[in-house]
Amino acid sequence: MNTVNNPAVVAELTNLYMKYEDALCNNKLEILDELFWNAPEVVRFGVTENLYGGDEIRNFRASRTDFKIHRNIYNLKVVTFSNDSASVTLEFRRIINGVERQGRQSQMWHHFSEGWKIVSAHVSLLPI
Amino acid sequence: MNTVNNPAVVAELTNLYMKYEDALCNNKLEILDELFWNAPEVVRFGVTENLYGGDEIRNFRASRTDFKIHRNIYNLKVVTFSNDSASVTLEFRRIINGVERQGRQSQMWHHFSEGWKIVSAHVSLLPI
Repeated sequence: MNTVNNPAVVAELTNLYMKYEDALCNNKLEILDELFWNAPEVVRFGVTENLYGGDEIRNFRASRTDFKIHRNIYNLKVVTFSNDSASVTLEFRRIINGVERQGRQSQMWHHFSEGWKIVSAHVSLLPI
Repeated sequence: MNTVNNPAVVAELTNLYMKYEDALCNNKLEILDELFWNAPEVVRFGVTENLYGGDEIRNFRASRTDFKIHRNIYNLKVVTFSNDSASVTLEFRRIINGVERQGRQSQMWHHFSEGWKIVSAHVSLLPI
């Protein structure tokens, strides 16, 4: 039960994460919705906002029309536990207002009967 | 298997989290060590640093002698999944260099045979 990093599960989550990264950078709202847990208990701490519950997250994303991110990610780490939960962390660099900033992102995923969902997420920038 | 928020598990994690909060604020290194997973795969994104693996986390903490935090926490949310994984998130306020700052903290916990451990953690401040 306590299997850490079953290779098949790590590969599955890595693929799912890359799908999320593409959806985030290109503002594919339906895919972002599909990959986040739709429940009052889901949490998303963004760079400038704290969002609780599927509705707050969906409304926040829907308000960002014409939103696109260009970022380079590195140190992507996918760690899986008991084949039904996973930690996905990464660092990124992104130009914001003309300044290159370094950021970090962490997500917790859980496997429900309807598939893998992000149940908690946190994105932040390191201080300049 | 897919039980979300089994009350007994939520109560257990809430107690463990409060033990962590006390250890963090009072720099009780042995308890912090005991509550973090000791493995190369553990990740801790702090306010100003990105740490990978039990050794980096332990060395970072050990370097902060006479360290104490005074912070008020709120919106503590403990969400448990399948009785062996959990998300713990909170917001906090803390005076840093004379300025009140708002912060966020998220942790992923997993239950191993040796007990519950933090397998990923992320702490950040909201921009002023």
